[in-house]
Amino acid sequence: MSGDFHGVESSLKKHLPESDFEEVRRILYGKPCEELEVSECAKKLAETGDFDVKIFKMDQGKSECLRRDRNVRVAVIQNAVTTSTSEPIDVQRDALHTRITEIMEVASETGVNVVCFQEAWTMPFAFCTREKHPWCEFAESAETGATTKLCKELAKKHNCVIVSPILERDENDGDTLWNTAVVIGNHGNYVGKSRKNHIPRVGDFNESTYYMEGEDGHPVFDTEFGKIAINICYGRHHPLNWMGYALNGAEIIFNPSATVGALSEPMWGIEGRNAAIANSVFTANINRIGTEHFPNEFTSASGGKAHTDFGHFYGSSYIASPDASRTPGLSRNKDGILVAEVNLNLCRQIRDSWCLRMTARLPVYRDLLIEASKPGFKKQMVKDNGEDQF
Amino acid sequence: MSGDFHGVESSLKKHLPESDFEEVRRILYGKPCEELEVSECAKKLAETGDFDVKIFKMDQGKSECLRRDRNVRVAVIQNAVTTSTSEPIDVQRDALHTRITEIMEVASETGVNVVCFQEAWTMPFAFCTREKHPWCEFAESAETGATTKLCKELAKKHNCVIVSPILERDENDGDTLWNTAVVIGNHGNYVGKSRKNHIPRVGDFNESTYYMEGEDGHPVFDTEFGKIAINICYGRHHPLNWMGYALNGAEIIFNPSATVGALSEPMWGIEGRNAAIANSVFTANINRIGTEHFPNEFTSASGGKAHTDFGHFYGSSYIASPDASRTPGLSRNKDGILVAEVNLNLCRQIRDSWCLRMTARLPVYRDLLIEASKPGFKKQMVKDNGEDQF
Repeated sequence: MSGDFHGVESSLKKHLPESDFEEVRRILYGKPCEELEVSECAKKLAETGDFDVKIFKMDQGKSECLRRDRNVRVAVIQNAVTTSTSEPIDVQRDALHTRITEIMEVASETGVNVVCFQEAWTMPFAFCTREKHPWCEFAESAETGATTKLCKELAKKHNCVIVSPILERDENDGDTLWNTAVVIGNHGNYVGKSRKNHIPRVGDFNESTYYMEGEDGHPVFDTEFGKIAINICYGRHHPLNWMGYALNGAEIIFNPSATVGALSEPMWGIEGRNAAIANSVFTANINRIGTEHFPNEFTSASGGKAHTDFGHFYGSSYIASPDASRTPGLSRNKDGILVAEVNLNLCRQIRDSWCLRMTARLPVYRDLLIEASKPGFKKQMVKDNGEDQF
Repeated sequence: MSGDFHGVESSLKKHLPESDFEEVRRILYGKPCEELEVSECAKKLAETGDFDVKIFKMDQGKSECLRRDRNVRVAVIQNAVTTSTSEPIDVQRDALHTRITEIMEVASETGVNVVCFQEAWTMPFAFCTREKHPWCEFAESAETGATTKLCKELAKKHNCVIVSPILERDENDGDTLWNTAVVIGNHGNYVGKSRKNHIPRVGDFNESTYYMEGEDGHPVFDTEFGKIAINICYGRHHPLNWMGYALNGAEIIFNPSATVGALSEPMWGIEGRNAAIANSVFTANINRIGTEHFPNEFTSASGGKAHTDFGHFYGSSYIASPDASRTPGLSRNKDGILVAEVNLNLCRQIRDSWCLRMTARLPVYRDLLIEASKPGFKKQMVKDNGEDQF
């Protein structure tokens, strides 16, 4: 990969002639997003912190007579780990706390109302190692842990809802570990948590070694700035998981992730957008940045040699609209915050226009899943026997 | 739109520098497809007929010890209507029969095993008009109609499974109309039919005026060249519809469509691929070509003036693999046939690697749909009251 290559959109913009660019952009990205000016103050802070800041205004839909526009600034933050994975756990975690605190200053400058950090944001994505020690030490209480305390301060200070995906330790439940997103209200209050429903067993994603599938359903959080839900990482490959949050009333579904290039990059631009289209919701898709090296060798069950890194986390975080448009992505190589101004009324407007919920025929699929969940499920299959089958 | 613009891929190929092209292509399209040589004979026939012919070899996965490779050539055909919509119904239909017969000669030359035509291929997409006469006359028996007779001849002659999406009239069932795909085996035999499950009410797609939702479930047809199913047009917006066919064992799901640029073009590259990824199947996505004008004015419920055309059907037919790669699309403006050589064993290999079926947790969604299908369904929603909610 060329060091000059920061992402699809910047390459298209640089190289395509204007008329082609507009057609390619329209087909690949839908209605245009207006890029808004970043304040001098925010720019300066971001430069100092060496991260990108981008603000887009997505199509706002129509103004309605009976409902006021519900304009919300939704943000996603992507970042690399900031210290060596050999440092003590608290040093690693505190450095990430500092990093996010710094980026949140810019979030505040840009008027963000709801922000989501990346999956397991307080730690390197150490699940590739299959080692329990020391990585399990990153797990903390969703309600009272150090990270939740920090997020409560940040949320209150910046009057902003924060979604904070962490490795959770539930002391009340036999010290169980979970992969959990904590939701903090804009008054600095703990609103609730949502656990990862689908756990990967693919490549270096040995997460089933560390925690189990969430059993808390598909909770939606009705905040001051919209009804939000969190589909964590691998759940994005499961259309029914997105559907679950949408059926419960979500308007914005966050997908905090950690995923690497060789495995998933061609899927990244597909799944979050498909979910936005199919469910008439906004989706906000976040991936971490960089290559993480670990102290001890591990293998990847790929026939390759033992090694100490997980591959490149390609960032490229973006926000998708129910109208099938999306923002450009953040860089593949650099920390950043992406802010989208959206009108949440668009969800219902698209629902009225496309009727995807009305035509969903849920009872058909209820009945199918009742059958398909039974042992010995008999498929509806017609064997071609080479003769007319009237 | 520039007249020079034939589609995203040709524009990228023309304008991006080689290193950027390879990265953009990889991120947008996944593993590369090898473009195979078209025989001189096929080329000549296609030139005479003024349509494109493209053959791609998609990544073939791994060879297995216990199963032979199952290499199949899957094809999609896109075309414009060939006569004025003012001609008598039989003239219009017969002209399309002739056109497809011509294109099938090339299909045969390229060694096609399974081919699908576009939605309601024997007629213009007249549902925009809301007129019943004369368009209902296009409806014919799935089992014994003129179109099925033709397809049986073509299937036998070319030793090829044919999926033929038509407007069906079911005389046995009160002269009911349906939007139906007929499956003809490679021995020229009638195998079965599959009816459209989700009917649009959006823009000019007034299809609910003409026919109802299919009640025959999600049938899969186990043919000599793979287990195939058909998700007709608007069904592609419904992830559960794709899932239904996959649960019943489909390896290739066709999506014969008729859709126009202003409405759906940014979704076109998303939905078929998401379905391939989420279900570990191949999907083959077909859209018609050109602008169809109708004798009488109609309105589009968009605040605009009455008019006589449906907008541009943008073609761009393509095939997507369970490994998240896809072929380039056919042109936005020209008839064509696209052939992909695939190894059907890839479906299970991807299932083994990604475990999306194993991690699907169907009983969770069974239970959710049981609740969500009840009147008065109570959403799982947490209200942020501004205070800690432990």
